[in-house]
Amino acid sequence: MNAEEFAQQAYDQKGLFKQVFWVACGGSVIDLYPACCFLNATSPSIESSIYTAAEFCTLPPARLGKDTLVITCSHSGGTAETIAATQLAQDRGAAIVTMTNNAGSEIDSKGWPCWVYEWEDETPQAERPAGFSLKLSAELMRMQDGYDKGDILRQGLTDLDGIIAGATPQVIEDLGTQFVDQCRNHDFFYILGSGPTFCQTYGMAICSMMEMQWQNCSYINSAEYFHGPFECTEDGVFYFLQKSAGATRPIDERAERFLKTHTDNLLALDSAAYGMGQIDETIRTYLDPIFFYDMNVVLRGIRGKAFDHDPDIRRYMGVVKY
Amino acid sequence: MNAEEFAQQAYDQKGLFKQVFWVACGGSVIDLYPACCFLNATSPSIESSIYTAAEFCTLPPARLGKDTLVITCSHSGGTAETIAATQLAQDRGAAIVTMTNNAGSEIDSKGWPCWVYEWEDETPQAERPAGFSLKLSAELMRMQDGYDKGDILRQGLTDLDGIIAGATPQVIEDLGTQFVDQCRNHDFFYILGSGPTFCQTYGMAICSMMEMQWQNCSYINSAEYFHGPFECTEDGVFYFLQKSAGATRPIDERAERFLKTHTDNLLALDSAAYGMGQIDETIRTYLDPIFFYDMNVVLRGIRGKAFDHDPDIRRYMGVVKY
Repeated sequence: MNAEEFAQQAYDQKGLFKQVFWVACGGSVIDLYPACCFLNATSPSIESSIYTAAEFCTLPPARLGKDTLVITCSHSGGTAETIAATQLAQDRGAAIVTMTNNAGSEIDSKGWPCWVYEWEDETPQAERPAGFSLKLSAELMRMQDGYDKGDILRQGLTDLDGIIAGATPQVIEDLGTQFVDQCRNHDFFYILGSGPTFCQTYGMAICSMMEMQWQNCSYINSAEYFHGPFECTEDGVFYFLQKSAGATRPIDERAERFLKTHTDNLLALDSAAYGMGQIDETIRTYLDPIFFYDMNVVLRGIRGKAFDHDPDIRRYMGVVKY
Repeated sequence: MNAEEFAQQAYDQKGLFKQVFWVACGGSVIDLYPACCFLNATSPSIESSIYTAAEFCTLPPARLGKDTLVITCSHSGGTAETIAATQLAQDRGAAIVTMTNNAGSEIDSKGWPCWVYEWEDETPQAERPAGFSLKLSAELMRMQDGYDKGDILRQGLTDLDGIIAGATPQVIEDLGTQFVDQCRNHDFFYILGSGPTFCQTYGMAICSMMEMQWQNCSYINSAEYFHGPFECTEDGVFYFLQKSAGATRPIDERAERFLKTHTDNLLALDSAAYGMGQIDETIRTYLDPIFFYDMNVVLRGIRGKAFDHDPDIRRYMGVVKY
C-alpha cells in the first residue's frame, strides 16, 4: 500500500481525526517532524504534535483515543519504547500507522497497519519515512479539509531526488575540506537551524555527529539564538549554520549576520544555493529538512573518511546492554 | 487579578477553548513549558502546544482563531517576536493572556490582558510565570473539564517555596565544589533531563550556562540519550543529570545507570533527595522543573563566583545591535 492508501484505510476505519500524534525515537522521530509541522501549519481541523516515545508512554496526551491517528516509526523494527507507544495507542482505541525498514520485525508483527520501506542509496525520497509522512498528511487533509496541493508535494518530492544528487558533489567540493578542518580544530561545536529543518539540526547533532562520529556538539534553534545562546559566540568557537530556503529563512539569516561578525569560525550550508529555491514555496519549507538530512550524511561521510571513523561503527548501540 | 481571574476573564470572553498555544522566547518560553505539559497530559478537551515566538509568527498553527487561548510572556516587556506573536493571535481572534516583569512596557501597553509579576528573591513560586501558568491551566480545566485538584496544585506551589529554601544551602554543600571543578576541567559538557523538567535542562544550557556564564554545553533529553547521544559518553566527558522526582524518573534512572559505568565525570542532582518526593504525585511532575530552575540559579551563582563571572554580565544582549 502507498501513503494515500494507508491514510484512506485509517479514515475508513475511524472517520474524521481530531489529532495526529507522531511518535518515535532518535533518527525516526526526526524523520516524522517535517510532516508534523506541515499538518500543524496547514490543517484547520487536525491537531498535530510529536513525541519521543518514552515520554509519550509516560505522559500521554489526555486526548489520545478513538479520534486520534498515531503514526510511529521504528527503523530497526525493535525499538522497545516505540512498540510500547504503538501498543498504548491501540489500547486507547486510536488508529495506527507504523513504519519500519525491517520486514517481519516485532513492530511489523502486531497486526496493526505497518508500512515497510527500503533504505538504500537509490530509494527515492518519496518512499522514505519523511516523504511518506508528508504524503500521508496531504491525503488526510485532502479527505478532511479539501487540501488540493498533493500533486505539488509529490512533484516536489520527485524533484528533490535530482536536487540532492546534484548538490552532493558540490557540497563536498564547497564545504568538505573546511568542515573536516573545523572538526580537527574543535572538540565541540554548535549547529544552528530553524523551522521544520530544526529536526535535522538536532539530527546532525545527535545522529550524524554524536552517534556516528563521537563528535561532541550542541544544537540551537536559530529562533532562540538571540535569547541566550549567542552570548557564547566569539572567535575560535565553531558554528555550522543550516540556512533554510523555506519560510524561516529570515530567522536563519538574522543569526548568520551576527555570526559573520562575531566568530571567525562559521560554515553556512545554504539549501537555496543548491536548488531548493526551485521547489514550490507552499511545500519547500517541509522538504528542506530532507535536503539537510542528505547533506548531514555527506558531511559525516567526509568526516568519517578523514578521521578514519566509519559512520557505521558503534561502541554501545546494539553492542552492550542498556 | 490572579491566575484564576485571568482564566475566568478569557472564558467569559470566548467560552470553551479548543487550543491553548504557549508562545515566548528563551527563558520565558521555558517557564511556560511545565503548564503546557500539564494541560496536554490532563485535559481531555484542550490541545496544548508551545512555540518559540519567531517560529509561531512564521508558521502559525492553522487552527489559531476564536477557539484559541494564546498565552505569551516577555520578561523584559519588549521582546519583539513575542509582541508580534501576541498581535498575530489577537488579529486571528484568539483570546490572550500575556505576562511581563515590566509594568508599562510595550507588551503591557497594548490593551490585551497582561499580568505583571514581581521577580525578586522572595517572590513566591505561585506568583512567578511557571506557577501562574500552572494555576491558570488548572482553572481552565476546572471550568471546562471539571478538574478538581487545583487546591493540591496551590498547596504544592506553596510547599515548593520551603523545599527550595531548604535545598539551596544543601545543594551548594553537596555539589558546589564538584560542579565548579568540572567546569574548570571541561570547556564543554552535557546536561540531561526529561519530561516537563527538560525545559530546565534546556534552560540550564541556554540561559544559566551559555548566556550567563559563556560556558559551552549541550542539552539532551534522557529519553533520547540511548538513541544516539550516548555514543559520545566516555571517561573524561562531563555529564550533569537532572534526576526528576516526577513521572519520568525511570527514564532519568536508566540514563544514570549507563552514565555511572561509562564516564568518570558524572554529577547527578536528584530532586527527590531534596524533598520533591513530598509533593503530591498528581502534580509533582510539573513542579519539578521549578525546583530545577532554582538549582540552576544556585549552580550558575557558584560558578560565577569561582570564575569571577557575574551572571548578570552580558556582552551582546541589550548591549549591541542584533
